[in-house]
Amino acid sequence: MSTTIPHWLEKQYELKGGQIALEDPEGVSVTFKDLRNKSRSIASSMLNDGIRSGDHIAFLAENDVDLPAFLHAISYVGAVAVLLNTRLSPEEITFQLNDAQVSCLFAGSTLWEKAVEADKGADRNIEIHCLESYHESFDHQDLKEVISLDDVYTMMYTSGTTGSPKAVMHTYGNHWHSAIASGLNLGIHAHDKWLLCLPMFHVGGFSILMKSVIYGMPVHLVNKFDAEVVNRQVYEAEVTHISAVSIMLQKMIDQLGSDDYPSHFRCMLLGGGPVPEQLLRQATDRNIPVYQTYGMTETASQISTLSPKDASRKIGSAGKALMSADLKVDAAGRGEVGEIMVKGPMVTDGYFNRPPLTEEYFRTGDLGYEDEEGFLYVVDRANDMIISGGENVYPAEIEKILSEMKEIAEVGVTGEENPEWGEIPAAFVVVKEGKKLDLASLQEFCRERLAKYKVPKRLYYVREIPRNASNKILRRKLFSALQKERDEYEN
Amino acid sequence: MSTTIPHWLEKQYELKGGQIALEDPEGVSVTFKDLRNKSRSIASSMLNDGIRSGDHIAFLAENDVDLPAFLHAISYVGAVAVLLNTRLSPEEITFQLNDAQVSCLFAGSTLWEKAVEADKGADRNIEIHCLESYHESFDHQDLKEVISLDDVYTMMYTSGTTGSPKAVMHTYGNHWHSAIASGLNLGIHAHDKWLLCLPMFHVGGFSILMKSVIYGMPVHLVNKFDAEVVNRQVYEAEVTHISAVSIMLQKMIDQLGSDDYPSHFRCMLLGGGPVPEQLLRQATDRNIPVYQTYGMTETASQISTLSPKDASRKIGSAGKALMSADLKVDAAGRGEVGEIMVKGPMVTDGYFNRPPLTEEYFRTGDLGYEDEEGFLYVVDRANDMIISGGENVYPAEIEKILSEMKEIAEVGVTGEENPEWGEIPAAFVVVKEGKKLDLASLQEFCRERLAKYKVPKRLYYVREIPRNASNKILRRKLFSALQKERDEYEN
Repeated sequence: MSTTIPHWLEKQYELKGGQIALEDPEGVSVTFKDLRNKSRSIASSMLNDGIRSGDHIAFLAENDVDLPAFLHAISYVGAVAVLLNTRLSPEEITFQLNDAQVSCLFAGSTLWEKAVEADKGADRNIEIHCLESYHESFDHQDLKEVISLDDVYTMMYTSGTTGSPKAVMHTYGNHWHSAIASGLNLGIHAHDKWLLCLPMFHVGGFSILMKSVIYGMPVHLVNKFDAEVVNRQVYEAEVTHISAVSIMLQKMIDQLGSDDYPSHFRCMLLGGGPVPEQLLRQATDRNIPVYQTYGMTETASQISTLSPKDASRKIGSAGKALMSADLKVDAAGRGEVGEIMVKGPMVTDGYFNRPPLTEEYFRTGDLGYEDEEGFLYVVDRANDMIISGGENVYPAEIEKILSEMKEIAEVGVTGEENPEWGEIPAAFVVVKEGKKLDLASLQEFCRERLAKYKVPKRLYYVREIPRNASNKILRRKLFSALQKERDEYEN
Repeated sequence: MSTTIPHWLEKQYELKGGQIALEDPEGVSVTFKDLRNKSRSIASSMLNDGIRSGDHIAFLAENDVDLPAFLHAISYVGAVAVLLNTRLSPEEITFQLNDAQVSCLFAGSTLWEKAVEADKGADRNIEIHCLESYHESFDHQDLKEVISLDDVYTMMYTSGTTGSPKAVMHTYGNHWHSAIASGLNLGIHAHDKWLLCLPMFHVGGFSILMKSVIYGMPVHLVNKFDAEVVNRQVYEAEVTHISAVSIMLQKMIDQLGSDDYPSHFRCMLLGGGPVPEQLLRQATDRNIPVYQTYGMTETASQISTLSPKDASRKIGSAGKALMSADLKVDAAGRGEVGEIMVKGPMVTDGYFNRPPLTEEYFRTGDLGYEDEEGFLYVVDRANDMIISGGENVYPAEIEKILSEMKEIAEVGVTGEENPEWGEIPAAFVVVKEGKKLDLASLQEFCRERLAKYKVPKRLYYVREIPRNASNKILRRKLFSALQKERDEYEN
């Protein structure tokens, strides 16, 4: 039996209508009443334009103070929002539009051309609307008044071993339970204000909108991350929470100089891979309480979190599974490395148009272990995933593209450590006999087909790619194999 | 599809094992680890004693620091806890034991004789265990590791128009969503500590245990309400929240003298009927933030709440429905009085062994209206219910007992205002020709059959009972009819 609740934005309109839902550094502020009215009028236009409950509606838009109303409008219509990464190439977008069976696409004006380009390859007729110029209407009578927690609300793409992206389906319940689990962990205070500087098309950014409408909490929206702006808003706008990745925190601390964060600041929620010990120390010195998290699109944002109080004695840990979530390692016992498996009402039921997930626990593909006290340590991300500036990069996806280059006989991709980005993608290439290849032409080929952050920043020439018995690329061995070849060459 | 979560006490053991779950003014303190271990060992004994998932296990016990472990043990077994009001007469308990199909009864030693007496009338064999001397065992392998939110956890009795009590079934989900809705309203802080001085067999007391295990929050247990003890613990134990009824708050304020409550005190959650304006003013003067609530057993405690910030401009209101709850009045429009109807995941699915509730909204039977801003005003509690010292008293139930007295031809019961108790039950009696009846013998008759708080404190002799066209007693007119008879007699 599906649990239903009153539409959450209607509730905040009723309970906190005059309070701020959204604001930005330029002084724009939107109350819950404004947000509700705008969302309803957009939803009414969507209905007038033929969008129906259950339709898949894609969004290709940068963060903007107007975007949340469109995402809430989807919930008033009962449609499904397909959130596209704006950094994808038109080809990648085409794939997702087709795969997700999208019937309508809302694009920001800066992304209009990319949207039109992507639409050319679509296998069905897709209505494209410009977000900024979309008309509003008076309340339609068919707006949803309740939310059924089992209904699908959003789809976001993630890639797997095969390098072929698949759409994670999130129900309203996934988002609800994620917000509640986070609130039970971090507490909920009357003056909380969350700064949003992550893309809303990623679950880390989107989940802040969910917390806002579920807690009745204002969001301070910084459309484009800028350390100086973020630091300033912590003081001036009395921001209490920020979600970020390590590279952002490093920039904030560098920009901060010797200043401390004010005492009202409660939480720096840090995702996207382990936090370097030195960065953690710098943050502590500046009165920035860092909560290190582990999570993924499939878990609707963080599923385990390490509190600041445990940070120093559990360096490198991602903490414990939140209330209502469960986490275990598929290994013989504590201390043993195995696949990390998770369960809970925030975990997705599966991917769109893919075979259903039937196991009790969701297999993350990541490897890790729990120490004697049950703290999780992630030792290896799934599928040799590279995390570059907070974006997940899947080597298989890049290898697939590169293998289409006529100059390339064999290719392997892995992450190379980088002080600024954490990791950058590096390509190891066996060039075909008689052919030539340089980094510039490799990058040019990729740029047409891949998001910029996925384009390899390094090219290494090798005689062979290390593989295991079943011919699978041993990506972790690419660097050592290169070194071995070089050593042999020199000797 | 039922949502499952890890067993909540297991989670708190994992997340906050070393932190206090329960404490009392005598310095007893129980960590979440202690509570978890004790609950598991009691559950293991229950399994060894043949108690099985789905069994109905009754509790007849005063508040005590050991009681929560038994209630959590029930959840490890998957049984259903039937919580009996300790003030009921043996006859009333017998009815509930039979009606709830109870197979086993845990009684506190002070209530042992009452339990044995009640068991005599039971229509099935009921195993009776003494709470204090119940043995503990090592962990049993069949303890539940997960909680399914759709499963029934508790049953608590309430009476209706007919005067015949029925068992409200609460699922784990009802309790979960009630705790979450309250947390979203009041906020959740790291140093929250809730004082429990209401009976745990009522939902108002039981819900504090649920908040404790869901938030990971300590409960300060005051077994028997004493204003001086409660006030002292607010200071000494740094209590932040108290659930109470008006009569308790009045005593706390009287005992407080001219002292103020400390600034760490966040919330006086007041249920059980409207709060007198003068009391509210006294509370404000003493820095006691009063949250006035409306709720009932069927809504798993409060479903609407008035915040202190609105208290002075909305005197007499019970506020608005909490997040995830919905409330409407069955009337033509705002300002019009009608039946109060509620909906939400904290609202019961129905009563045990009674026809299912099929309407979308639960009809409370209470009358009220919403003002232009949507604030609820309860104008008349259902079924002419009397609220005496926070206990619900149903006139029909008392009338049914009194009508069995051979001296009584006709009887009507209503509440009489009382400065100490709010209301006390008053009986209006038409004595049979040739018979005599005094208050003492009426009370003696009732005491054998009814809980003490239901026994009429006043007896008025009348010539007739006011009734409507369909012969229903007009309880609200009992006093004016009496006055009319007296006036006629004098003229």
